[in-house]
Amino acid sequence: MRKHEFLIRTYYEDSDAAGIVYYANYLKFFERGRTEWLRDLGFEQDTLMQDDGVMFLVRKAELEFLKPAYFNDKLIIETFVQSLRGASIIFEQQAQRVASQEYVCRGNIQVVCLSTRGRPRPFPPLMVERLTQYMEQEN
Amino acid sequence: MRKHEFLIRTYYEDSDAAGIVYYANYLKFFERGRTEWLRDLGFEQDTLMQDDGVMFLVRKAELEFLKPAYFNDKLIIETFVQSLRGASIIFEQQAQRVASQEYVCRGNIQVVCLSTRGRPRPFPPLMVERLTQYMEQEN
Amino acid sequence: MRKHEFLIRTYYEDSDAAGIVYYANYLKFFERGRTEWLRDLGFEQDTLMQDDGVMFLVRKAELEFLKPAYFNDKLIIETFVQSLRGASIIFEQQAQRVASQEYVCRGNIQVVCLSTRGRPRPFPPLMVERLTQYMEQEN
Amino acid sequence: MRKHEFLIRTYYEDSDAAGIVYYANYLKFFERGRTEWLRDLGFEQDTLMQDDGVMFLVRKAELEFLKPAYFNDKLIIETFVQSLRGASIIFEQQAQRVASQEYVCRGNIQVVCLSTRGRPRPFPPLMVERLTQYMEQEN
Repeated sequence: MRKHEFLIRTYYEDSDAAGIVYYANYLKFFERGRTEWLRDLGFEQDTLMQDDGVMFLVRKAELEFLKPAYFNDKLIIETFVQSLRGASIIFEQQAQRVASQEYVCRGNIQVVCLSTRGRPRPFPPLMVERLTQYMEQEN
Repeated sequence: MRKHEFLIRTYYEDSDAAGIVYYANYLKFFERGRTEWLRDLGFEQDTLMQDDGVMFLVRKAELEFLKPAYFNDKLIIETFVQSLRGASIIFEQQAQRVASQEYVCRGNIQVVCLSTRGRPRPFPPLMVERLTQYMEQEN
Repeated sequence: MRKHEFLIRTYYEDSDAAGIVYYANYLKFFERGRTEWLRDLGFEQDTLMQDDGVMFLVRKAELEFLKPAYFNDKLIIETFVQSLRGASIIFEQQAQRVASQEYVCRGNIQVVCLSTRGRPRPFPPLMVERLTQYMEQEN
Repeated sequence: MRKHEFLIRTYYEDSDAAGIVYYANYLKFFERGRTEWLRDLGFEQDTLMQDDGVMFLVRKAELEFLKPAYFNDKLIIETFVQSLRGASIIFEQQAQRVASQEYVCRGNIQVVCLSTRGRPRPFPPLMVERLTQYMEQEN
């Protein structure tokens, strides 16, 4: 199955007094990865909200912090789609430290599709279509 | 003139790899101070937005970083009103490290009053009244 | 078993464009809860690091986002200890929105004890002792 | 005088309940700009700290928030060096919203050069040299 890759840099803002990347920030990095993957599929979240009345909400997050990453590191954020069913999509994501090629964090993130009134609704058909195509490709 | 005091704690989330409180966070701490001062005057920003159609926007910020503060510190956030004119209020704010009694950051923050459509409008009369009373008091 | 409670306020800094508390921030709120619980037991993390050469690292986090919380909300952060074994402690934590008495987020957080060189080591004996006493008490 | 440009994206993490980019984040965006400018000149801050015992600290920041930027925006961070004297460098920085070509924030940031013991010291000679060359170039 195909994975999406997105490169980020860590800055001072991402570090903490233990000298490493603050763990809560991986939730942000993973969201950047999902956003860029969606963008590569041709979808912008602001347009989806305004034109289709669709928003996404994180419902669950399971994170494992494997190794430290540091200030000034390059990280590759990998995004796979594990499953897509109705109003729910589960992502598997990993952050790899370029310098050491080690995985520093991995997680499963469940995102649900909501109407702008906050009710669950299926993902837009075009999104399901492109996403299914993407999942069937190889890297 | 009277100053408002609000006590905060710094946590891991506030520190950076230099082992000190990350400077951008003082903008957040000062906002907490202004929010709590407004609350002490009897105003809640969510109610002001819903009932009076009023929001506040930071227009300018001048900050001076005097000394480092550290993870796990207690800081007193001091808030003075320097001036109030029409749709604009200028705050003078300081963060004092309790352990050493040193001032670690000071700043001037200009906040403007907007309608929910984003147009400048005077602060609500009741707010001006209570604020003026507050400014005339002594600590 | 006894639970620890810590009250926090949400500010503008905690909200996002969906008008709700940004989900990644619950990791920060839960850490504030654990820090204050440790403080109530008589332990300061900066002293533990300097005097005992001990630090804590989050190894795993599982979060469920149940309901939205909003800007300007009061949240009670509840902290239970689920298990304590060797160098690992697992916390069960919840955030309750005071206005609606609803739980908005719950999670399990695994924290490990490390030497300042980054090697796993048992929690300090005095900490285990006080913690065990605490766990046996009722609220 | 030559300016450095760095492109960033805003994500959910950067927005607030007013639906716009949270103002404190411009301090982070400007720091990313300065970091990337330094990198383009051939300097990495982690190497400078380890090899040369040099760190940088923000001493003053003056920010003006001109227009709102939104979730999912592209911003160009422009960085100019206004002056360089001894242990102090003053940057002029601006954030331009690509969609509207409007400047949304501008600021002056004073950064000081410190030894790892926290004492002011001149910037490394090679940095001054390359920086001076850079300043004399045209865009």
